[in-house]
Amino acid sequence: MTNHMLDEVRSAAVAAARTARESYRAGKIQPTAGVAPGMTQANMIALPRDWAWDFLLYAQRNPKACPVLDVIEAGAYHTVLAEGADIRTDIPLYRVWRNGRLVEEVADATPLWQEHPDLVTFLIGCSFTFETPLLEAGIEVRHITDGSNVPMYRTNRQCRPAGRLHGELVVSMRPIAASRIADAAMISGRFPSVHGAPVHVGNPEALGIADIHRPDFGDAVRIESGEIPVFWACGVTPQAAVMASGVPFAVTHAPGHMFVTDVPDSTYHV
Amino acid sequence: MTNHMLDEVRSAAVAAARTARESYRAGKIQPTAGVAPGMTQANMIALPRDWAWDFLLYAQRNPKACPVLDVIEAGAYHTVLAEGADIRTDIPLYRVWRNGRLVEEVADATPLWQEHPDLVTFLIGCSFTFETPLLEAGIEVRHITDGSNVPMYRTNRQCRPAGRLHGELVVSMRPIAASRIADAAMISGRFPSVHGAPVHVGNPEALGIADIHRPDFGDAVRIESGEIPVFWACGVTPQAAVMASGVPFAVTHAPGHMFVTDVPDSTYHV
Repeated sequence: MTNHMLDEVRSAAVAAARTARESYRAGKIQPTAGVAPGMTQANMIALPRDWAWDFLLYAQRNPKACPVLDVIEAGAYHTVLAEGADIRTDIPLYRVWRNGRLVEEVADATPLWQEHPDLVTFLIGCSFTFETPLLEAGIEVRHITDGSNVPMYRTNRQCRPAGRLHGELVVSMRPIAASRIADAAMISGRFPSVHGAPVHVGNPEALGIADIHRPDFGDAVRIESGEIPVFWACGVTPQAAVMASGVPFAVTHAPGHMFVTDVPDSTYHV
Repeated sequence: MTNHMLDEVRSAAVAAARTARESYRAGKIQPTAGVAPGMTQANMIALPRDWAWDFLLYAQRNPKACPVLDVIEAGAYHTVLAEGADIRTDIPLYRVWRNGRLVEEVADATPLWQEHPDLVTFLIGCSFTFETPLLEAGIEVRHITDGSNVPMYRTNRQCRPAGRLHGELVVSMRPIAASRIADAAMISGRFPSVHGAPVHVGNPEALGIADIHRPDFGDAVRIESGEIPVFWACGVTPQAAVMASGVPFAVTHAPGHMFVTDVPDSTYHV
């Protein structure tokens, strides 16, 4: 590919990310798997300043589940990950949490920043980042094939606590053909800041998952004959901590409805 | 190697780390390059609680220079990285900083924890971790050959600031034969949480290094004909931030005199 062609591909990807964010700002709601391919997507959690230290420490102690890509300081809503973006409006769907309970889903979080002007926002790596490399290697990603949301599960594994925060690990699942599991592990493993290699392959019961066809978040997907469920640490883990710890107030993205950045996936490749 | 042999090798490595820490606790002072081969070593900085958020954010924003391996909460001095270790005594040499100036080097930091009972301690990845894999690949590590401290340099590259903290990037340097630079980059790149791949190869002037034979920290090393200086982000970067930002009080390790943990280097391999 010539430099000129490469520039055009990059510009098109950034433009796709921008267009997606603008459509969400205008009110469109959709899961973001497969949106703006090649651009990194991020999980979001915003907490009052008083909780920011506990959360950043929780993330540091659980880096596979909570790899922090950016922190937006108290009251601010711009990020270095996407020029001109507004974190209060540019995610397709938000969840509002009060005293550890999900109370509402909204498409525009601006009023919540007015209610809590000191929110500190954390943007956390998302496994969607390594889905493009998986697809490029000829590994099917079922929820993209089917146009659905990735299935996510609460597990019986406790994260390492920090301050007032504790909770269980949440995982995402992709069914992978037995012959491609090693490839999927190696490819995703080269992206440690967006969850990296799988935490578990097969045997959902060992993670405390009673029914693989009934995820706690997102949509169930087909598991074909010859495929094994493969589990990756998931950026919904902070929402589990909000629930388990009874955090007084938090705003998060809705699972699968991510913040689409202007950062190419390749940035996180080691 | 049989399982039994592997267990013995591991036990010997943990024992070597423990013996090293005990000797430092007893007062021995030495640079730790090459000590307890295969066990991860860490940079240390302890700051009053009021500065902890700024520092953790600074580390998150400059992950190549400041990859956080553990945070010890206010007033505590034990770490999950080394059972039974005491962070106040088990580093061979400490530096004491007041108002951004180095005022003292001490072998026992216990009185400083009495003076500031709310110190939060950060343990940060160290490039010594990938030196064993470099040696195993037949790449000479000059400062280990010569039994000296690794040379470190302040650069003209500013880190991304956080709160009250700003400062320049500090780098370590290893001269590498031209034919092995790609290997050294790939091998170290597989250890992203201990500084990862080099930030710069050759051309010290571009980093603002006036004289490669006069490092700002550590010892000068020979650069043989056919070798190129290769630069990695360095965990002394927090000390540069302490100086540049005039931090009122901090305790750090002395450059090259690291905290030797019980964690095998391979833990940080992706």
